[in-house]
Amino acid sequence: MSRRHRPVGELLDAARRGDRASLARLLSLVERGGDEAREIGRLAYPLSGQGYTVGLTGAPGAGKSTLTSALIGHLRAQGHEVAVLAIDPSSPFTGGAILGDRVRMQDHATDDGVFIRSMATRGHLGGLSLATPEAARLLDAAGKRLVLVETVGVGQVEVEVAGKADTTVVVVNPGWGDSVQANKAGLMEIADVFVINKADRKGAPETRRDLEQMLELSDLADDAWRPPIVAAVATERTGIDEVWAAVEAHRAAIEANGTLASRRRFRLGEELREVVARRLEQRARQLTSGQRWDDLRRQVTEHRLDPWAAADEMLAAVQA
Amino acid sequence: MSRRHRPVGELLDAARRGDRASLARLLSLVERGGDEAREIGRLAYPLSGQGYTVGLTGAPGAGKSTLTSALIGHLRAQGHEVAVLAIDPSSPFTGGAILGDRVRMQDHATDDGVFIRSMATRGHLGGLSLATPEAARLLDAAGKRLVLVETVGVGQVEVEVAGKADTTVVVVNPGWGDSVQANKAGLMEIADVFVINKADRKGAPETRRDLEQMLELSDLADDAWRPPIVAAVATERTGIDEVWAAVEAHRAAIEANGTLASRRRFRLGEELREVVARRLEQRARQLTSGQRWDDLRRQVTEHRLDPWAAADEMLAAVQA
Repeated sequence: MSRRHRPVGELLDAARRGDRASLARLLSLVERGGDEAREIGRLAYPLSGQGYTVGLTGAPGAGKSTLTSALIGHLRAQGHEVAVLAIDPSSPFTGGAILGDRVRMQDHATDDGVFIRSMATRGHLGGLSLATPEAARLLDAAGKRLVLVETVGVGQVEVEVAGKADTTVVVVNPGWGDSVQANKAGLMEIADVFVINKADRKGAPETRRDLEQMLELSDLADDAWRPPIVAAVATERTGIDEVWAAVEAHRAAIEANGTLASRRRFRLGEELREVVARRLEQRARQLTSGQRWDDLRRQVTEHRLDPWAAADEMLAAVQA
Repeated sequence: MSRRHRPVGELLDAARRGDRASLARLLSLVERGGDEAREIGRLAYPLSGQGYTVGLTGAPGAGKSTLTSALIGHLRAQGHEVAVLAIDPSSPFTGGAILGDRVRMQDHATDDGVFIRSMATRGHLGGLSLATPEAARLLDAAGKRLVLVETVGVGQVEVEVAGKADTTVVVVNPGWGDSVQANKAGLMEIADVFVINKADRKGAPETRRDLEQMLELSDLADDAWRPPIVAAVATERTGIDEVWAAVEAHRAAIEANGTLASRRRFRLGEELREVVARRLEQRARQLTSGQRWDDLRRQVTEHRLDPWAAADEMLAAVQA
């Protein structure tokens, strides 16, 4: 049997025994969507729920990749395994993602305790916002209990994806009103930990003050987690321990007060909602083809039937 | 009977007899969406199909409003009536739109041949991309045979809305790589006429050259319309005749070669497709509430059922 047609159940068994090629193949299938992705989801779902996800986001050039690489080094030194999903919505096909993998892999290429994967969406019905949690669950099911989800930029999809992690780290730089930009991009709402990376550059104290002011204005409840602000220079591996300590502090806090469980329930509910919407969209595409569709469209273009009435007729036919 | 509850049929009759207040009220109802908007669409649709729409788009500050105002002056001098829809997605509520109306109205406030209206979306299910063609059809049904659709900026919605006009005018300024920005914003694809506004500033010849180069690269078919590039200084009403002549030349060309009819058919098909999708989304929201939804969601959060399987069960229930 060619590897291409190996059943996904076999691939998942192999991945759970530590076979990296099988895991990579499964992730490609998840990215691609379709029936095999659906089957992987079905098999991986009951095996997941043990893992923890940490999102890292921030503007391009903020040093997210360097910080991720430094965090990997820190985690490996402590004996932890780690998986990384690098989310790149600007790369709809494989080229960018593969290049990304190569660049990122260099430091950790020979380390079996590190699994790095770039994610684009090739054909997944729900795009990255649905493919990413599925990929994270697959990694979880394959025994990767700690997944870093790093975004390339701060587009809408990337903020959405990063905000769905258990702990979300927002990376800013000193100066240039970076904290204001972070606010605009919707990062204040999703941040559990702030990292001022490149903190050896001038303007770091002002950026810290800006962030603190914005936190003041954000009117947190008294018992809410208050995102700490950690200074780091990822290129020199300065402050990395503190970044991870802040992540662990957040994890401990939300595990203790039940926020982790309620957040996950909420996220799964939202994911289910989105899957329902995507499935309905798929149905809409199926509906908007064929003889019946052509007839209705002709009536619309001839101004005999308005679009909403035509849509009503189309939908009535589905429900019959 | 209070005016608030006047049936939309009566309002439409009054609007067709020239009552501006009734037309304004109908447009508010279209913006708001809901059953009354639906009824207006049903009544206006068979009465529409005679009008012509001209979209004007470009970056904020490019001088679109001034150009629109100058075009109104030009058209009124020729004895044409004209209606303007100013599309402002950044203004979800009425404040901005009303301010916009006031500012724009000053020049033409006492002229019954001019009808100006800002459009935001208040509750319309399909947002501005569906509310705008409905508003344009209503104006058409009310006898406004020429509608200028001006966008405030070049966001995704605005480019989409402007691109759905019969003739689309893209306004750029000299210098600052404005033509490159126009290209990035997706304006090259939708432009039927380019206007270099503020053409008395330096850099105008370079901007023309840039646009010409981009048109070269865009690989137009031999028989395709080649967007003319018109220089104007809208504040001084220079070049306005030429801008309108270019619009009329485009209109004549696409009327003669059948492109106008095929474009409109295509747009109506796309609109119908979007209406079907929006209606299905609405149904998804209805689905994702209630006892059945709560049961399925609990099964998902307890990892007994994955989201796609839960969605399948939900959708199966709809079709039964």
